[in-house]
Parts: sequence; C-alpha cells; structure tokens
Amino acid sequence: MDRISVEDVLLRNVRILSKSSPQEMRMVPRGEGSFPSVDVLKEIVSLIKGIVFPDFFDCHRNNEKIRSCYLGVNLEKLYSLLVTETRRALRFDNTYSEDEVADEASSLVLRFIDELPEIKRLLYTDVEAMYNNDPAADNFAEVILSYPVVHAMVHYRAAHVLWRLGIPVIPRVITELAHSSTGIDINPGARIGEYFAIDHGTGVVIGETCIIGNHVTLYQGVTLGAKNFSLDSNGHPVNVPRHPIIEDYVTIYSNSSILGRITVGRDSIIGGNIWLTHSVPPGSRILQRREVSAVFTDGLGI
Amino acid sequence: MDRISVEDVLLRNVRILSKSSPQEMRMVPRGEGSFPSVDVLKEIVSLIKGIVFPDFFDCHRNNEKIRSCYLGVNLEKLYSLLVTETRRALRFDNTYSEDEVADEASSLVLRFIDELPEIKRLLYTDVEAMYNNDPAADNFAEVILSYPVVHAMVHYRAAHVLWRLGIPVIPRVITELAHSSTGIDINPGARIGEYFAIDHGTGVVIGETCIIGNHVTLYQGVTLGAKNFSLDSNGHPVNVPRHPIIEDYVTIYSNSSILGRITVGRDSIIGGNIWLTHSVPPGSRILQRREVSAVFTDGLGI
Amino acid sequence: MDRISVEDVLLRNVRILSKSSPQEMRMVPRGEGSFPSVDVLKEIVSLIKGIVFPDFFDCHRNNEKIRSCYLGVNLEKLYSLLVTETRRALRFDNTYSEDEVADEASSLVLRFIDELPEIKRLLYTDVEAMYNNDPAADNFAEVILSYPVVHAMVHYRAAHVLWRLGIPVIPRVITELAHSSTGIDINPGARIGEYFAIDHGTGVVIGETCIIGNHVTLYQGVTLGAKNFSLDSNGHPVNVPRHPIIEDYVTIYSNSSILGRITVGRDSIIGGNIWLTHSVPPGSRILQRREVSAVFTDGLGI
Amino acid sequence: MDRISVEDVLLRNVRILSKSSPQEMRMVPRGEGSFPSVDVLKEIVSLIKGIVFPDFFDCHRNNEKIRSCYLGVNLEKLYSLLVTETRRALRFDNTYSEDEVADEASSLVLRFIDELPEIKRLLYTDVEAMYNNDPAADNFAEVILSYPVVHAMVHYRAAHVLWRLGIPVIPRVITELAHSSTGIDINPGARIGEYFAIDHGTGVVIGETCIIGNHVTLYQGVTLGAKNFSLDSNGHPVNVPRHPIIEDYVTIYSNSSILGRITVGRDSIIGGNIWLTHSVPPGSRILQRREVSAVFTDGLGI
Amino acid sequence: MDRISVEDVLLRNVRILSKSSPQEMRMVPRGEGSFPSVDVLKEIVSLIKGIVFPDFFDCHRNNEKIRSCYLGVNLEKLYSLLVTETRRALRFDNTYSEDEVADEASSLVLRFIDELPEIKRLLYTDVEAMYNNDPAADNFAEVILSYPVVHAMVHYRAAHVLWRLGIPVIPRVITELAHSSTGIDINPGARIGEYFAIDHGTGVVIGETCIIGNHVTLYQGVTLGAKNFSLDSNGHPVNVPRHPIIEDYVTIYSNSSILGRITVGRDSIIGGNIWLTHSVPPGSRILQRREVSAVFTDGLGI
Amino acid sequence: MDRISVEDVLLRNVRILSKSSPQEMRMVPRGEGSFPSVDVLKEIVSLIKGIVFPDFFDCHRNNEKIRSCYLGVNLEKLYSLLVTETRRALRFDNTYSEDEVADEASSLVLRFIDELPEIKRLLYTDVEAMYNNDPAADNFAEVILSYPVVHAMVHYRAAHVLWRLGIPVIPRVITELAHSSTGIDINPGARIGEYFAIDHGTGVVIGETCIIGNHVTLYQGVTLGAKNFSLDSNGHPVNVPRHPIIEDYVTIYSNSSILGRITVGRDSIIGGNIWLTHSVPPGSRILQRREVSAVFTDGLGI
Repeated sequence: MDRISVEDVLLRNVRILSKSSPQEMRMVPRGEGSFPSVDVLKEIVSLIKGIVFPDFFDCHRNNEKIRSCYLGVNLEKLYSLLVTETRRALRFDNTYSEDEVADEASSLVLRFIDELPEIKRLLYTDVEAMYNNDPAADNFAEVILSYPVVHAMVHYRAAHVLWRLGIPVIPRVITELAHSSTGIDINPGARIGEYFAIDHGTGVVIGETCIIGNHVTLYQGVTLGAKNFSLDSNGHPVNVPRHPIIEDYVTIYSNSSILGRITVGRDSIIGGNIWLTHSVPPGSRILQRREVSAVFTDGLGI
Repeated sequence: MDRISVEDVLLRNVRILSKSSPQEMRMVPRGEGSFPSVDVLKEIVSLIKGIVFPDFFDCHRNNEKIRSCYLGVNLEKLYSLLVTETRRALRFDNTYSEDEVADEASSLVLRFIDELPEIKRLLYTDVEAMYNNDPAADNFAEVILSYPVVHAMVHYRAAHVLWRLGIPVIPRVITELAHSSTGIDINPGARIGEYFAIDHGTGVVIGETCIIGNHVTLYQGVTLGAKNFSLDSNGHPVNVPRHPIIEDYVTIYSNSSILGRITVGRDSIIGGNIWLTHSVPPGSRILQRREVSAVFTDGLGI
Repeated sequence: MDRISVEDVLLRNVRILSKSSPQEMRMVPRGEGSFPSVDVLKEIVSLIKGIVFPDFFDCHRNNEKIRSCYLGVNLEKLYSLLVTETRRALRFDNTYSEDEVADEASSLVLRFIDELPEIKRLLYTDVEAMYNNDPAADNFAEVILSYPVVHAMVHYRAAHVLWRLGIPVIPRVITELAHSSTGIDINPGARIGEYFAIDHGTGVVIGETCIIGNHVTLYQGVTLGAKNFSLDSNGHPVNVPRHPIIEDYVTIYSNSSILGRITVGRDSIIGGNIWLTHSVPPGSRILQRREVSAVFTDGLGI
Repeated sequence: MDRISVEDVLLRNVRILSKSSPQEMRMVPRGEGSFPSVDVLKEIVSLIKGIVFPDFFDCHRNNEKIRSCYLGVNLEKLYSLLVTETRRALRFDNTYSEDEVADEASSLVLRFIDELPEIKRLLYTDVEAMYNNDPAADNFAEVILSYPVVHAMVHYRAAHVLWRLGIPVIPRVITELAHSSTGIDINPGARIGEYFAIDHGTGVVIGETCIIGNHVTLYQGVTLGAKNFSLDSNGHPVNVPRHPIIEDYVTIYSNSSILGRITVGRDSIIGGNIWLTHSVPPGSRILQRREVSAVFTDGLGI
Repeated sequence: MDRISVEDVLLRNVRILSKSSPQEMRMVPRGEGSFPSVDVLKEIVSLIKGIVFPDFFDCHRNNEKIRSCYLGVNLEKLYSLLVTETRRALRFDNTYSEDEVADEASSLVLRFIDELPEIKRLLYTDVEAMYNNDPAADNFAEVILSYPVVHAMVHYRAAHVLWRLGIPVIPRVITELAHSSTGIDINPGARIGEYFAIDHGTGVVIGETCIIGNHVTLYQGVTLGAKNFSLDSNGHPVNVPRHPIIEDYVTIYSNSSILGRITVGRDSIIGGNIWLTHSVPPGSRILQRREVSAVFTDGLGI
Repeated sequence: MDRISVEDVLLRNVRILSKSSPQEMRMVPRGEGSFPSVDVLKEIVSLIKGIVFPDFFDCHRNNEKIRSCYLGVNLEKLYSLLVTETRRALRFDNTYSEDEVADEASSLVLRFIDELPEIKRLLYTDVEAMYNNDPAADNFAEVILSYPVVHAMVHYRAAHVLWRLGIPVIPRVITELAHSSTGIDINPGARIGEYFAIDHGTGVVIGETCIIGNHVTLYQGVTLGAKNFSLDSNGHPVNVPRHPIIEDYVTIYSNSSILGRITVGRDSIIGGNIWLTHSVPPGSRILQRREVSAVFTDGLGI
C-alpha cells in the first residue's frame, strides 16, 4: 500500500469527522469540561462494594480499629472521586449557576455518604433473602461472591440514593454497569424494600416507577414494565407512574411480565411465563393453564 | 505435598496436552502466525467509539483544529491496529496468496475508514431514536453514556462494514463483544437502517440474513430468528436467507419471536410475547389474546 | 464546602461502618485469612483457556517442544494460583483441620490438573457441535474466538471438576463469571455430556441437578429448572434432584422452560417457547399450537 | 506471632506518626492542596522529549500533517499537566493571591510552550556537538538514543526556561530527575549556550550561577562549583554569583574542579584532575605536572 | 530464516542453560522458596517514604484522624510486605529452624515498625541540615522533593535499622536501590548521627564500619573508605573496623578520600580533593597545596 | 485564561514544531519504520538476567525439567523481541538491502543466543570475583541481588556479543542503560576477561578499545580512558585503539585515571587517585606520594 494514499485517506476523514454536525451540538450541555467518566463510576462502585463487604472485596481485618483505617481511606477516596463526577453531572442541571456547582456537589456527596450505613444494612438483608431462596447456596460467602443479584443490588441501592438526591446521568450509568455484567436492568428510580432476591436474573427488567415491598423474590426474565405510554405535545413520551406496585412477600417466577400501574397484592405468587396486566388481590396464585401438543408446528424458534 | 509428585503430575500433563489431536489440527488455517486478538479488537472498537463520540469517550475539545489532532492520532492508531488484525484474519481466506495479504489488508482498512463518517451519522440517528422512545431518558448524553443499545450499535455498525468488505472472523468477534456486555446479539451480516432503537435489550437476537428498515424499535428478548434450516450434503446447515424482513416504522415489544423469511409490513406493531411465523401486512397490530387463571398449575418455573 | 464538616461526615460514617453487625459476623467462616479472590479465579480460567486452545488464547507454536514449554509454565502458574485459592476456599469446609488444609489443597489441585486432558477433549467436541449447528459459522476458529458457548463451557467444564472434588465456593464463582459475560448460567453441579451446543445463549439457565446427555443443543432463553422445592425444618430449601434429565440428541429451541425432575427422551425436539413439566418419550416432537390475533390487547409489554 | 500484639504495635505507631511535629509544620506552604508530583513531572519531560525528538521517542511520521496531529495532542497534554503542577508550585510563592494562581499558571505555561521551538533548536546543537566529540559515536541516532548528555540537556533546557519564568520547586525537581538517571547534576539556574557536550558525565556538577558559552565540552566528574559562600544573619547561606564563567570553545577534561566566580577564557583547554580557583585568559592550556612514584604509600583507597 | 533451525537453536540452548553448574548450586541457600524481591523492597521503601513525609509522597491531609487512617493502611501494608520478604531473607541465616522463621520474621518487623518514629525524627533533621547548607535551596519542600540525599537517607536509615536487627541481604539491597538512583553508596552497617547532609552526592561512598557524628556534611565524590584489608585463611577478606570515624560538625568537600580506621576530630574541615589516611585532631583545617602549570602534559584524561 | 488564546498558542507551536529542520533530517536513516525502542531493550536485558540467574530474577525451580520450560518460554520471547529490534537497528547499516534485513536479523539473533551459555559462565565468574573482593559481602545471593557490578556486567557482556556481531546502535543503548542505573560506563566495544570485579562503581569509565585481562578489579571513579584523539579530514575524531590494556590480576583503586594505549602489566596494583599515562611492567605497585598541609587554601570545592 502506497504510504501517500494511506495518509490521504486518514487526513480526508479527519477533516470530515472533526466537524460537529448540528445533531452532535445538541447533545452537549452548557459550559466546558468533561463528561462523567464511566470508568471512574465503575471504580466508585468498587469502593462502595469494599466498604459494604470489607471481608470480601477489600481485605479481612478482625481488628475494628485497623478496619476503620481502611474504611477511612476508602471513604475519602469515594468522596473525592464522587465529588468530581457529580460536578460534571450537574452541568446537565440548569438549576445551579457555575459558581454553585462545587459546593452543591460536595454537599450532595456528603448526604450520600451519610446513607451508606443504611445501604449496607439493606444489602445484608438482600444477601440473607437470596441465601434463603436457593437450595444450591451453601453459605453466605458464596452468595456474596457469586450471586449476580448482590452485584446488581450494590449498584441499584447506591444509584437509587444518588437518584433521590437529584444527581443527573450518574445513577443511570451506575445501574447500567450492573445490567451489563448481570443482565439485571433495574432503573435507579424504582423503589425496592428490604430482603429482595432475584435468582439467575438474566433478562430481569424493573421500570423507573416500580414500587416493590419487602421480601419480594423474582426469577430470571421477569419484566416489571409499562403497558404503554403517552406522548407530550413534542412527541416525547411523558414520564408518569406507569410500572407495577409489588407488595410484600410476593414471588414472581421466570419470564413473567407484569405490565402497567397495577398492584400485585401481598403474599401473592405469580407463576412462570405469566402475562399480567391487571391488579391481583393479596394472596393470589396466578398460574397459567398450559397445553402442549405435537399437532401443529409453525417454526422452531432458533 | 511432596514436591516430586507435584512436578510429576505437572510434567505428565504437559506431555499429554502438548500433543495436538487431529481435531485440533483441523481448526488451524494455512500458514504461520497469530490469530486475531480479541483484546486488540476490543481496543479497536474503543477507538471507534472515541472517534464517533469524541466528547464522551475521548475528550471534549471545542476547538475544531485541536479536535482534529486527536482524531488524526486515533485514526492512525486505528489504521495500524486494524491492518495487523486484518492480515491475521485473511489467513482464513484462501483467495489471497501470502504475498497479497499485506496490500489487501491495508486497502480493506482504508475502505473501512472511508465509511466512518457514515457510521457516525447512522449512530447519531440511533441515539436520537432511543431518546425519543424512552420517557426515562433525560438527555442525549445519558443515552450515549448508559444505554446498551448505543454500545451494541457501535459494534454492529462497524462490524457490518467489515463484514461487507469480506473480512473473515473479525466482524463476528466484534459483535460478540457487544453481545457479552449488553445481551444484545446482532449478527454482523444483518442489514439495519437508520434510527434504530432497542430498549433494555437483554436477550435480543438478530439473525444473519435479517433486513431491518428505518425507525424500527425493539424491546428486550425479541428474537428475529430462523424457523428452521436446511442441511447440505455434508450435514452442515446451508447459509440462505432465513430471517425476517422488518419494514420501516415497526415496533416489536418484549420477548416476541419473529421467525423465518417473513415480512413485517411498515408501521406495524407487534405486542409482547408474540410468536410470529408468517408475514403480516403494513399497519398490522399483532397482540395475543391472554387468559390468566388460578386453576391449574404444572410448575412454577424457578 | 467547609473542610471541617467534610471530615466530620467521613469520620462519623467510618465509626458506624467499621462495626460488624451480628448479621455480618454470621457470614464469615472460621479462622483468619482472605476469601477466594474473584480476580485470581478469572486469571485461573484464562490460564485454562490458554492451555486448552493454545493457538487462540496463548500463542501459536508449531513446534511441539516449544509448545510444551509454554504449557509447563502455564500449568505451574495454574497449580500455584489454584492451590492458594483452594486453601482459602477450604476454610468453608469443616472437615479439615487448619493443619490438613495445605496438603489437601495441593492434592485436590493435582487431581484437577490430571483432568485437564479430558476437559480439553470435551471442549473440542463442544466446538465441533456448535460449528455443525450454525449456518453462520464459517470455520472452527470463528467458533472458538467468538461463540459465547465456548467461553461458558470452559468455565463450566473446569468448575464441574472442581465441584466433583468437593471444593467449596470456587466452582460457583467460576460459572458465575461465565454467566456474567455470556448470559449463560450453568450450575457447576449439572452433569453435561460431550458435543454440547448452545446458540446465542442469553438467558439460558441449567440447574444444579440437571443431567444432560451427548449431542444436546439448546437455544437462547432455555431454562432447565426446578418446578418447586421443599423446605427443611429451618425453612431453608432442600437440595434434592429437582431439575430435568435430557437424553442424547435432544434439541430445545429458544425460550422454552423444562421444569422439574422429568426426562426428555433421546432424539426429541422441543420447539420454542414451550413450557414442559412432564416427561416425554424418546423421539418426541413438542411444538405448541399458536394463535395470533389482533382482537384483544391488554398491554404491549414495554 | 499473636495477632493482638501485631495490631497493637501498628496502632501505637499510627498514633505517634500521625501527629505533626512543629518541624513538620514548618515545611508546608500556605493553603491546602497537593504538592507537585514527581511522577507527573517525569511524564511531562517525556512529553517534551517526544515533541523535540518525535522520531525517537514518540513515533516516526514522514507526513508533516500526521506528525502535527501527534504534536497537537502531546502539546495539549503537556499544557494540561504542566498547568496543574504549576498551580501546585505557585503555592510556594507568596506573590499571588489564591485567586490569581489559576490564571498565572496558565499564562506561565503558555510562555513556556512558546519557548519549545528554541529549546528544540538548542538540543539539536547539543546532539551535533556530542557527535563531533566522540569517536565512538556512529551516527546521530545513537547519540540521541543512548548518550546521557542528551537526556540531561532535555531536562536542563526545559527546567531552565521554567526557572526563568519564576516557577518555584518544579525546575529543581526536573533537573534532579536527570541527575538521578545520568549522574549529571545541572542546577536549573545555570546559563548554558548552544553546542554543549558532556561525555560520560557521571559526577558532573554545574552550579546555580554558572555562565557557560557556546561550544563548551565537559568530561565526567567535572565540577563547576563554588569556592565557599557567605551566610546571612540567620546563618543561611546567601545566594550570590559564586560559580565560574566558562567562555566559548572551552574544553574541560575529566574530574577537574573549577571553583568560584572565576572566568575561563575562550578557547582554553583544562586538562584532567585540575583544581582551578583563579581566572585564566583566553587560549590557556592548563595541565597539571604529574609525578608517579612507588616510594611512599599511605593507603590504597578502596 | 528457517523455522526449524530457529527452534533447534532455542531448544539446544534451553538444554544447556537449564543445567545448574556446581558454581550456581553454591549460591542457593538451604530449603525451598523465593528470594527477596527487589521490586517489593522498592515498594516497601516507597511506603516508608509516604509514612515519613505524608504531605509529599502520599497525600496531604490536615485532619489528624484522616491522616491516621492513611498511616494505618500503609503501616499494615508495610508490615505484611516486609514480613514476607524477611521470611525469605532468613533462609540465609542458619540460626533459625524452618519452623521458627515465620514467628521470627513477624517479631523483627514489629521491632522495625517501632523504630519508624525515630527514623522519621532523624530524617527531618537531615532535611533541615541540607536546607541550611545550600544557598540554592528555596524551601524545605524543594529539599524533600528533589535533593538526592533525602532519598538516600530514607533508604539508609531504614536499612540500618534492619541491619541492626540482623536481617540478611535486605538492608544491602535497599541501600543499593538508593545508590542506583542517587550515586550515593552508603553501606547499611555504617552508623550516622543526626543532621546529616550530602550535597550533589554522586560518587559518595560510605563504608560498612564508618561512624559518623551529628551535623556532618559531605560533598559529591567523598569516599569514607578502607585503606586496605586483611584476608582470612580462605583468602576471603576479614570484616573488621576499617573505615573512618567522623566526629560532630565535620565538613568534607568534594572528591576527598578519607581512608582507614582514622578519626577526623570534631569541627574539622577537609577541603576538596584531599587524600587523608591519618587521624586529625578536632578543629583541623585540611587543605591541599595546589599548583597549576602549563608546562608539562602527559594526557588530557578524556 | 482565555480558551481562545490557549488554543492559539498550542496551534502556533504545533505548526512550528512539525516542520523538520535540515539538521533533523540528517539524523534519520534510510527507509521507513521505527527506531529501536529503549523500553524493549530494557525488557530484553531483564529476560537475559532471568535466563542467567533464574533463581534470583525469574523463579526458583529445583526441578530441571520445569526450569527448562521457563527457559524455553523466555528464550523464545527474547528471540522474538530481539529480532524486531535488530531489524530496526539494521536500517543504520547500508550493507544489507531492505529484503535481506529480516533474514539477517534472525540469523544474528540466533548467533547471539548460542553465546548465552558462555555469557552465563562469565557472569558467574564475575559474581565470584566480587564476593571474594568485598569483606562486606555475606553470600553470593547478596552479590547477585544488590551489587551494581553484576547489573552492569549483564548489560556489558550481552552488549559486547551484539557489538561483535556488528549490530548497530543497540549495544550502546544497552550499556547506557547500565550506566544510568549504576554509574558504571563500559563501552560495548571493550574486551573484558573473566572474574572481573568493580566495587561501588560510580564514575567508572571503560573506553571502547580497552583490553582487560582476567581477575582484574576496579574501584569507584576509575577511568580507563583516552589521552587524546586525532581528527579525520572532516574534523570528526578517528576511531583507533586509544584506551589502555590491563593485564591479568591487576587491581586499580578508586578515582585513578589510566589514559592512552598503554599497558598495565599483570599482577600490578595501582593505588587510588593515580594519574597514569605510560605503561608499567608486570608486578608494579604505583602509589602516589601525598602531602597534606594546612598552609594554603585556594577554595573548598563545594
């Protein structure tokens, strides 16, 4: 290959690609500066995981004082990284002037840090719930080290607090990190009680306006989704309560879809592969009639 | 443990494992040299992502000339890495002699680079389509930073161009990288128009001979698959058009399977959990009758 | 933000978070020391992948003696890393005294290494099976480099041997690594024969007590699960055979659920989206009657 | 070792070491924030080396436009890193208020960048001079890649410009980096003309107030030092001109010491092991009378 | 190049090089296991530097409690790394049985950690002495960040404590690390008082049995060496006091050699380039008569 | 700082710096491609160190077969890295056509590898010599791990073989790496016998045409240099034998300079600080008469 033409092709495309299209311009928020960094947010969640499960993901220290040294260092690192990312994210919120952003970011992150003990408490209830639901789980350590739901819930429970604090963009990036590595897609806006378990988890979708009680268990492929949505006058969908309310002690088996702002009453069991679009009272047992036949085939579904 | 026996066990297995079975020999292409490297291909897609969305994944530069410096460096790096990988991949294609491979690789990669502006244009339409489909999306930046479909489409749109250029192995490795991190499995051979959106995405499968129009939207778990396939005289399946054609402005809701070389006419809506194996005309509304009963249970589907 | 108050918040939460709750104490095994490290286990599987497919993931060496040098180094590294992790894992097993753990770990790992040639043999049958099942597969190399099932089976086949050796925690962590990157969730306790193929794979779940014969093929979203399970007197589910037996030459298409300790007889074909909770004899063709209507809609299932 | 006592010892020393002694307090400048980072300054000099010798330390590009892309990226990186370090260093200068520091740092760094073409020009004269002085040098490339003087002069010439701009601390750290890797210790305050060569170089010391002309050559172990210095009323030494002036075309051979504010006239040659403390006129040949005897030994000098 | 012959050459030399010569066997201590790692020892000294100068090499924290968290983490890391290296080093000492080594290593390292506050105190006296000796030093920070003597003394003062504790091999490796980066070669066995300064430093050698008082200052190229040494009956040199004693407040200028077990009395000044092999009383001023002539040249000393 | 002016300054200097001066053009060899990489050459010497001292710098393996696996892998890595660097270096040699370079590089590197056993043998004699010369050396391991001469001799002995093979540039870069980290500057062209020792070493210079016998010992600061050199008609110095010949069993103490093509006869001892420019017969004892006086001071030599 002639060097000349290689360089011609490269430079020709540099010229074209360096021009911002009008579309591209629309995507950028006001002011200068970097966007939140996905890699740093990943590191932030790792720090949180190490703070919550210090024996598993950081280092095991029996001595409480030594352990508190590790916690102090990690909390300060967390504070410092998260303040930087929060400042970047606040550029997407027009409420604050450029001058207020630094103070606001610090204040929001401190409020987040004050929630860490509660996040930790909730996550241990999730571990316990998962252990109690799976006959294949041999001990709590195995659950913490290998169950995807634990990974997903660390991300969700941290992201949900950040979402409640009104920080833009970051909560969604954090839950998407968990979605990517577990196949469990929980919108940070969803509200989820304690002792929450998901087994296997691939394909689970939990929508933004869901409200989930305590002691709820889901299996793989469960969708808690919207039935449909309305558009505003610009044709952009309107963000209203549109996902289900799941009350305490409900179990939903694999691949079922619960759709719309309906309520599944407490102590209900929803079987696998159910398509549910209306509310059911407490104590319901929803199981679909099934028939299997060898009669008619219209495709194998490869 | 006795050192002697440790070393005996190690060396015994070294001896066995270093012999290539006949099966193993069949897997290796002609000639010498390394195989395409999955890690380098991952880096290549990262470069492309930074070239397409320079504000998000590389660095934000308002000044067009400075930005073009970054683009120049990244394009040259991309060229150099991709030429090496393409040379390795061309060993699987018997069309070229060993001597022609270097020139051919360079020429193919330059043709790929000439397509980058179009790849970029298409990806921005995908971002816009996704934003317009999700009430939970607050701004374009959130979509680019956190929606799995954007990640999947960067991989697919680059891989599809490489596939059209006839480069072996690499396109499939690239789309599988996206499948691994998003659960969205798009075969690089599929043809997909502009403004393409997938929400949530886990479990989506789009087969090799699919043809998808503009403004099409899919939800999680949608399969655009084959109904069945014929075998050749060696018992190996024959690669013929066997996946659906989806026309413009079609929406397919979660967990539906569209199977075989059928056509879903433009402006159609396919509801969730549909199993469709025959063509439907433009403007169709396909929604399955559902009944939920508490009568008969034959398993919870854990 | 006032530095004083930042530090106050950090130190206040250090104090709270450094106290172990009673719940937290229950999760820790006897004795001192670190837990198995997920990152090291990831490295261990990479070594195994390089040992099994030396041309693809390590380095291509035609000369058998040179290749055996690479194998020797990798096998010794594998031995050394896996002994350390096994020692850590054996803390979860009360059978061994602290003193016996080191010898036991070494002995177990050597038995694992003696199984590597058989693991390799089985994996090559899986590659061949996958190649023969997919018309889009151009050659064996593409299958090895890009098909998620190969990645999943390396993890599963290694984890299953470790599970048979009775090593706690580690097998589950290893298969979960594959679940995270492929969406294929195979419990290490499952028994799977040779020539096993899974296409696409996202959402596949294979339970702990499954028994799968030779030449079995699955598609995405297939669940081989439990129908329900009994609890012991503590309310913890009992670990008994509760997942299906799939005989030789069975194919199960996408999104079907086979639930409970039932048997699918050899040479059977189970179509897509089937919900099967009773045994079927050899040679069965199970395909569900489907009707599609536009009559009644109770939700789109977003 | 008893875990308890290990932790006791650690915590006891944590308590002692975390208290700042009064001495320690004196060392810290006003305000908050990090100190200049030695590692970042190392990276900054690497960038400069790549900018000055792009073929050697960065990447060889015949095409001027492609080369300018690399330069643009490296210059911007240099700007951004050096501004941060300069801000940190300006804390040591009480001239600027906290508010002025950011603007001042940026302005100083831009003035530095405007000097880079002259730094480059001077360094090429040094390379040429070195090449012309050493019969063992085969080509310019060998000189640039392996002669310690080139490494030392990149550090010195950059540090000297920063020193002239009045930036505290950083210039000295930069020349000390070269001292550490070459044994050549040039104070950034020294003034050195073009075509400067040092062969071997270990042990060369060039003091802060030296003035060195063009076409000067030094050999290993040469000291251009002070004869003595006066103390101020606090007993701290006074910083006045106290090092030699070396005029054009002077050569000084190995291990000679030229001490005090004296002048070595142009075209002079100072032989090896000379101890010179008074000025010499242009054209001098200073060579020491030597006698070697076997008569009297008072030590071997191991 | 023919692949066959490449592999032949490689394998032929593998065979030769893998045989241990008798000479090689003599170099290995009893037992199994790794040797102390130079890289880990480098990391250990970095930890010590960060513990002693937390504002400079670790991170600046005004809050004492936060700072103590960093210290706790670093001290524990130091403890853990140094215990491992000490165990490895104790293999060279036949005093301890294999079983005693672990306990002994831990106990020695704890005694080292108990000396850290004193090491810190001494190092601050060295910084102060250096600052007071150099008119070019602008502030303490510049001294700590850039003066090679500080780097050398951190290594020496830590190594000397380890040497006094009788730990083999490690002390020498640590001081050699400083020698490599500063050109200052201090044997860990030397005894050095407080307020010790070395300017420039390249070529300084301080022998194993030196005794140096307080407030001593050296310049580059000073040797405190042996005059000669006696051999034992095996022809190996005998390790007896053979290096000088330098009393308080002595200054020795550049390139002087002080040789043998002589004493330089307190408050003495030794000029540059002096060769001193007999003791001198307190208050001495030793300055060499110099004559410079242009008469006779017997070589330039390139 | 105004963004506009920042970018203006950057772009202005990009323009200037991207133009190659005529001087710059002269430094580049014919053809295209990268220059030898200093970092890769560093890695190459590390590999050699691990091959020669496998117990110290690679890993300790009692089992000869396991050890030979490590050697095989390292030798192949060495071969592959060194062939690439040699190709790059051969661009500086006009003897070979572009087409011959690849074969020639491979052939030269194989000849180098065939010398490794002899390099190893020589290095063990150096270790033994050093051990026998230093009363402070406790065992061979300490010498190998911490004595700079060992590091310097690994570089020199490898570089000398490459120099004898006629490979340009690389030998000098390799010995300069040792010079940088030890202060010992040995030109790769020098010829040095077995059992060679240098204590401390800082400032030692050994010129290109030196010939050194067996059992020679040097101390710090010794120069084996040229007295002066002749220029060719272009004013470039001529490369003729111009450095000393040191016969067997010679010891030269610290800071002595032996200059010119003279011979130091076998069994001679040269004391410290000697300036020797004429040959001395075997068995010489050259020690300088010294007088120390307090009479006349003309400078302290700071």
